[in-house]
Amino acid sequence: MKRVKMTVSYEGTNYHGWQTQTKLAKGDTIQEVIEKALSKLTKEQIKIVASGRTDTGVHALGQVIHFDTSSLIPVAKLPLALQGYLPEDIVAIAAEEVNQDFHARYGAKLKTYRYIIDNGKRPNVLYRNYVYYYAKKLNIKAMGKACDFLVGTHDFRSFCASNTSVKDYIRTITAVDIWQEKDLIYLEITGNGFLYNMVRIIVGTLMEIGLGKYLPEKMEQILEGKNRNLAGPTAPAQGLTLMQVNYQ
Amino acid sequence: MKRVKMTVSYEGTNYHGWQTQTKLAKGDTIQEVIEKALSKLTKEQIKIVASGRTDTGVHALGQVIHFDTSSLIPVAKLPLALQGYLPEDIVAIAAEEVNQDFHARYGAKLKTYRYIIDNGKRPNVLYRNYVYYYAKKLNIKAMGKACDFLVGTHDFRSFCASNTSVKDYIRTITAVDIWQEKDLIYLEITGNGFLYNMVRIIVGTLMEIGLGKYLPEKMEQILEGKNRNLAGPTAPAQGLTLMQVNYQ
Repeated sequence: MKRVKMTVSYEGTNYHGWQTQTKLAKGDTIQEVIEKALSKLTKEQIKIVASGRTDTGVHALGQVIHFDTSSLIPVAKLPLALQGYLPEDIVAIAAEEVNQDFHARYGAKLKTYRYIIDNGKRPNVLYRNYVYYYAKKLNIKAMGKACDFLVGTHDFRSFCASNTSVKDYIRTITAVDIWQEKDLIYLEITGNGFLYNMVRIIVGTLMEIGLGKYLPEKMEQILEGKNRNLAGPTAPAQGLTLMQVNYQ
Repeated sequence: MKRVKMTVSYEGTNYHGWQTQTKLAKGDTIQEVIEKALSKLTKEQIKIVASGRTDTGVHALGQVIHFDTSSLIPVAKLPLALQGYLPEDIVAIAAEEVNQDFHARYGAKLKTYRYIIDNGKRPNVLYRNYVYYYAKKLNIKAMGKACDFLVGTHDFRSFCASNTSVKDYIRTITAVDIWQEKDLIYLEITGNGFLYNMVRIIVGTLMEIGLGKYLPEKMEQILEGKNRNLAGPTAPAQGLTLMQVNYQ
């Protein structure tokens, strides 16, 4: 029995998120599809553990999972072998054998998310599933200034969906970058953990600042206020992609 | 009655090309879908003429069409008004009133196509519908050298699908650029016209040069040979996008 760490990518458009939280939800989850594919490939009952869930419509280019297997398929060849059992919107990237104490969720030290806004005059049809199209011009300089207030260790209660029951709202953001390439605005944010909807609420707030509704300094006040109602709306899921998980 | 020039974009993945050439073909064509949408919007029977057809699976960011209408909807507002009748993989970009002698097909002076190859270790799942994934490393420098031979006025018979009945194989290529951004290789080619499958056969030939099967100078010999069998295979449709049509 060996433990495998695998990096997987997916377009979340056609799935009900990483894992269903309610039996009423319709549609496949990404976890189910990968577990089925791994089970078919290895002829074992494989259960996988991910670094964390992603919501319906959210994508990943560097989600990390772990699982245990007795399969004799060389670990480095697993991604390509697995691909034969996966749909084309889920792609296995890499695999390596790890120690039995490796845990994709508890061992995750840093995660990087990317959010893309298509700020062009008209939507780019080829990008539509993984960007959020927004027609009104955004002031990226103001958004960048506001981002600076996020870096560091803060209570991010204002940026947490109100329907959650976490107790600890303290998280550390190690880096936030925002930049524009032609019509696309990219936001990349790295931290030791993210509250429910945190990146999407940060983006929704940054967009209000980019529209000139608030000054960049408002971001600091929202953080200090520790109240979800102070922050902007939750930006749509489709613009969000989990880029990377680091374990050191 | 006024004549309207409209720029439209589409992801070709789910369509049977711009226009069906055979009644046996299944699935919608992009032309049909746009004509239906325009007819519903204007309550007229609208027929459209495009700058040229695109094949099944080929995309466009800047396809140009024209049509005649008596609709009172201001022309500049047509794209947004039309969008309500279009699926999300077809996006109307811009519209303007033009002289009655404007013709989207016969008036086209230059067209620019882009072909994208994903040359990464594993396919990027978010780009999969509009790039051609190719795992073996390509030598982009050699491909660039080969591109230089294409510029100018040539007989492009070697780069024309053999099942066509055109008489004039002479075309002028005004510019070819090839560049790499991370894992993606972009080829952009502009000319006064393209033979059937011409860009895709050029890409297939460039890839053989990029693999080191032939030296860049082979491109010149292939041109001079005027024989389809000398060139490389036809690269898949999904990597090809019509970027722009110029009318001066």
